[in-house]
Amino acid sequence: MPTPVLAIHGGAGTLLRSTMSSELEQQYRAELQAILTAGERMLAAGASAMDVVCEAVRRLEECPLFNAGKGAVYTADERHELDASVMDGRTLAAGAVAGVSRIRNPVLAARAVMDQGAHLLFIGPAAETYVEKLGLEMVDPGWFGTPQRLAQLHRARAEAAGALLDHDGQARTPIDEGKKFGTVGAVALDAAGHLAAATSTGGMTNKLPGRVGDSPLIGAGCYASDESCAVSCTGTGEAFIRVAAAREVGALMEYAGQGLDEAARRVVFEKLGRVGGQGGLIAVSRDGEVSLPFNTEGMYRGMVRAGGQPVVGIYGEAQEATG
Amino acid sequence: MPTPVLAIHGGAGTLLRSTMSSELEQQYRAELQAILTAGERMLAAGASAMDVVCEAVRRLEECPLFNAGKGAVYTADERHELDASVMDGRTLAAGAVAGVSRIRNPVLAARAVMDQGAHLLFIGPAAETYVEKLGLEMVDPGWFGTPQRLAQLHRARAEAAGALLDHDGQARTPIDEGKKFGTVGAVALDAAGHLAAATSTGGMTNKLPGRVGDSPLIGAGCYASDESCAVSCTGTGEAFIRVAAAREVGALMEYAGQGLDEAARRVVFEKLGRVGGQGGLIAVSRDGEVSLPFNTEGMYRGMVRAGGQPVVGIYGEAQEATG
Repeated sequence: MPTPVLAIHGGAGTLLRSTMSSELEQQYRAELQAILTAGERMLAAGASAMDVVCEAVRRLEECPLFNAGKGAVYTADERHELDASVMDGRTLAAGAVAGVSRIRNPVLAARAVMDQGAHLLFIGPAAETYVEKLGLEMVDPGWFGTPQRLAQLHRARAEAAGALLDHDGQARTPIDEGKKFGTVGAVALDAAGHLAAATSTGGMTNKLPGRVGDSPLIGAGCYASDESCAVSCTGTGEAFIRVAAAREVGALMEYAGQGLDEAARRVVFEKLGRVGGQGGLIAVSRDGEVSLPFNTEGMYRGMVRAGGQPVVGIYGEAQEATG
Repeated sequence: MPTPVLAIHGGAGTLLRSTMSSELEQQYRAELQAILTAGERMLAAGASAMDVVCEAVRRLEECPLFNAGKGAVYTADERHELDASVMDGRTLAAGAVAGVSRIRNPVLAARAVMDQGAHLLFIGPAAETYVEKLGLEMVDPGWFGTPQRLAQLHRARAEAAGALLDHDGQARTPIDEGKKFGTVGAVALDAAGHLAAATSTGGMTNKLPGRVGDSPLIGAGCYASDESCAVSCTGTGEAFIRVAAAREVGALMEYAGQGLDEAARRVVFEKLGRVGGQGGLIAVSRDGEVSLPFNTEGMYRGMVRAGGQPVVGIYGEAQEATG
């Protein structure tokens, strides 16, 4: 039986060392390491892959650094619309919520929908009503906001209005372009040989209300099957939906005989490239292989094997951190 | 270049000759034939596959016999929540709406979202606001209802409460069990060799508000790629989502080298069977092959080739009608 393993991501995008303070960089690295360390303890103690990915994503949601749960980005009308999904590779069971604004941890709502088993995807206020009855913790919609995210929205609006131009009239690269692809996720293989995946997001800064990306869509932003792999995606959601990115990694393994890394890279660099998709994904195979490819400058990411030490990465050059 | 072809479906389920009047059966057959005839004229005149599938599904939505648009089933709270999606095999462009109640033709809303290109999937009232600005026709939410569908809801509720038992205490098979899987869809190959798919639904009778099935989800209930095939699904939506049913047909063709019919049957009889999925799908390949498999007693379906006559079918035994 392969060694249990956990991989996580905190979004992909234009993450350049030149635009991030070393203090902020250290905060990101420390947070990713802490979540991986906690996950390693769970895996080593025999926890299920599903429990481990839900706990990892719950912690990512609770951390205001990442665009999911607390610290989610703002929509164009200064609200939050959160999406999340989970999938259990053992049974292909899955659950998801989209367009929710009052559930503290959307990933736990997705898990509750899956565990309930009646349906798979609930949207909007009706999703909130459904999981509130199941005992999920609800919060005031304002709970998700942070001053940093509000400032991002205002900058995004100003850019959309053409206000932020360099002195020579050229459009300036947004400082937080990368946040547009903010999503968090986790994939794991447990001691029993089962795979699971979870994905959660606050969407895109300044997004139109009602827009839903790939994160809550099984097969697009989240997928797990014990027959192949578990996958969680982050990036320009529409492109990931069009190529069924998460399931495609598994399909290439199951039907084309490709290895995990070959399949994952083909989806990120070839399939997504064809439709202009930007971002990345994290994947773990049933044999315990890990692949963390991205076609952007950076992706907050990390992995840990049971009994091992976490390795984390942010920028593209930090290839040593990608396992 | 293969002859252009159109296939349509109007839902799958427990469609037994013994439970349907011959008058009603003739209504269904006549409606399917009329839609196919109109589609054949468009294809023969050189219309695009995307235009043809949208028009076919628009007509299915307008017909109160089918569970989409006018004649959509009722949710548990006596409302309508409609979902639809479209995908263009030429570019992999796609559009979808979910949980909408005021858009007269959800498939045209999905098309408008695709044509707009900013996003792919919009949900709830915000989706309505978005497409209303694009000029889509809006209706009062009561417009979709029919006395027959309301009676179905009341019967479904009574059954859920255990009121409808046979005299020997056995649960009676619901008369309109099949309506639970009601969905409509169309797939086409045009004279230029391009594929397209469209799917639209009113969901499940007595469904919980906010529940979304596979119909508006690209890769699950709708998929098209000129590299392989176009697919529209109908059935127990959750199962179709879990196996990424629509995309899976294409993946089996592209990566496992299977023919259209082999791939479509494998998804319906093997993949869906594993997760308890019931229903069927319609598929057309880039070579003009057509496959209309279903694992239920029946599926409203039909196909026509440019220059040819429509063939329609309802029951399983009518295999001669499946092309």
